[in-house]
Amino acid sequence: MHSLYLDSNMASSADMRYFNWVVLLVQLLGVVSVVITAVWMGHFSQGGFAWTEDPAKEFSYHPLFMVIGLIFLYGDGILAYRVFRNDRKFYIKILHGGMHVAALIFASVGLKAVFDSHNLADPPLANLYSLHSWLGLLVVIGFGLQWVLGFACFLLPWLGMSIRTMYMPYHTFWGVTLLILATATALMGITEKAIFSMAKNGYTSHSREGTLINCLGLILVIFTGLVVYLVTKPEYKRQPAPDEEHVPLDN
Amino acid sequence: MHSLYLDSNMASSADMRYFNWVVLLVQLLGVVSVVITAVWMGHFSQGGFAWTEDPAKEFSYHPLFMVIGLIFLYGDGILAYRVFRNDRKFYIKILHGGMHVAALIFASVGLKAVFDSHNLADPPLANLYSLHSWLGLLVVIGFGLQWVLGFACFLLPWLGMSIRTMYMPYHTFWGVTLLILATATALMGITEKAIFSMAKNGYTSHSREGTLINCLGLILVIFTGLVVYLVTKPEYKRQPAPDEEHVPLDN
Repeated sequence: MHSLYLDSNMASSADMRYFNWVVLLVQLLGVVSVVITAVWMGHFSQGGFAWTEDPAKEFSYHPLFMVIGLIFLYGDGILAYRVFRNDRKFYIKILHGGMHVAALIFASVGLKAVFDSHNLADPPLANLYSLHSWLGLLVVIGFGLQWVLGFACFLLPWLGMSIRTMYMPYHTFWGVTLLILATATALMGITEKAIFSMAKNGYTSHSREGTLINCLGLILVIFTGLVVYLVTKPEYKRQPAPDEEHVPLDN
Repeated sequence: MHSLYLDSNMASSADMRYFNWVVLLVQLLGVVSVVITAVWMGHFSQGGFAWTEDPAKEFSYHPLFMVIGLIFLYGDGILAYRVFRNDRKFYIKILHGGMHVAALIFASVGLKAVFDSHNLADPPLANLYSLHSWLGLLVVIGFGLQWVLGFACFLLPWLGMSIRTMYMPYHTFWGVTLLILATATALMGITEKAIFSMAKNGYTSHSREGTLINCLGLILVIFTGLVVYLVTKPEYKRQPAPDEEHVPLDN
């Protein structure tokens, strides 16, 4: 059985060219985006990180933790099925679900940071007025729902294959859609913060802060574009091992 | 031959449920987004439309023509292959390419409007400093390239099937990707303009302008989400007529 399994994966090895390089590039872009966000908040926009004792600096955790959670960890969690294609499906499921738990924890702390930075300011600032906040809230709620439904359908043993097969295309569609929406929300957040942060001298790409911000946005777009490319390209789909139950991704 | 062709399409009619309803919904959302943009510019933000004699009001054409061109017409142009699935492929190609020419014309006038509104202002405003402008320019250039490559590959007769088959997955991937990026660019543009337009009293969703703006953003997201759903759902793919040359959509 084991050699058959190896064979079925070796058969597709010609299609797997560039896969590892693109995955490596995605990791680099993810790390760079996190570093740029930290530098932007810590050095330029807010001048550092703090907790509730300094609400303006507590804000710094909002972009940082959102980029770490809802973009970097979220994207890598999606890629788990492609990167660890030769491992047992159950282990990949645990990894996929676990990375998305971590993403949800970062997102929750990131949300607390922005609400605190509004509510604890003097005078307090309004919450949830912008398109960024509306779409962002929808993304976090949708992401939480995806996690609960995914856990109930694919990890708990009580549901049969027919339900899993039915739910799978929706899980993958919404997984990719919400990652794209998270990135679009980040682009709006970057735009808002850029205008507020550089209000005195005007938002200009000729300043170091402006260049950094615009590059951050482009890097997030390329990161998400490559993740979506890797998970939607038919040649890169994981082939089921012959001895495992298999939920087809689409017909 | 004709009855065979009908049969092959009738066979998939059970899969086509909801298709027409979703296409209708997409049209409604597209029209509503154009109307909201016109009302926002004409009534709230800029107070009307004008040409070079009034650069502030000339700006109004920028969001309006971008939404008409690079979202509504672009999305509908993509859908042409799904909606007119029973017509001759050559006619659908002409329609697909023609709608995207129209989209490109609207986008060009929309670009002229924003550059004029900066260059003719007193004092002139800076161009191309924001993330919105950087990504927007990349989208327009990418869209133009897509059109030229699509025309050269699929409409001119000189290229063989092997080149067409090779280029097709890239054409569809970039077509969908650039539509999503156009929408993300629009969301950033909405965010920028919302902050500048409501600078006096602050951007708040409790004002009529703020509610209108946030709803416009959500409608654009739903429009694009539904277009991408309709074109990527395998059941909705156009089946080639038995008598036509066929370029497969993927693998």
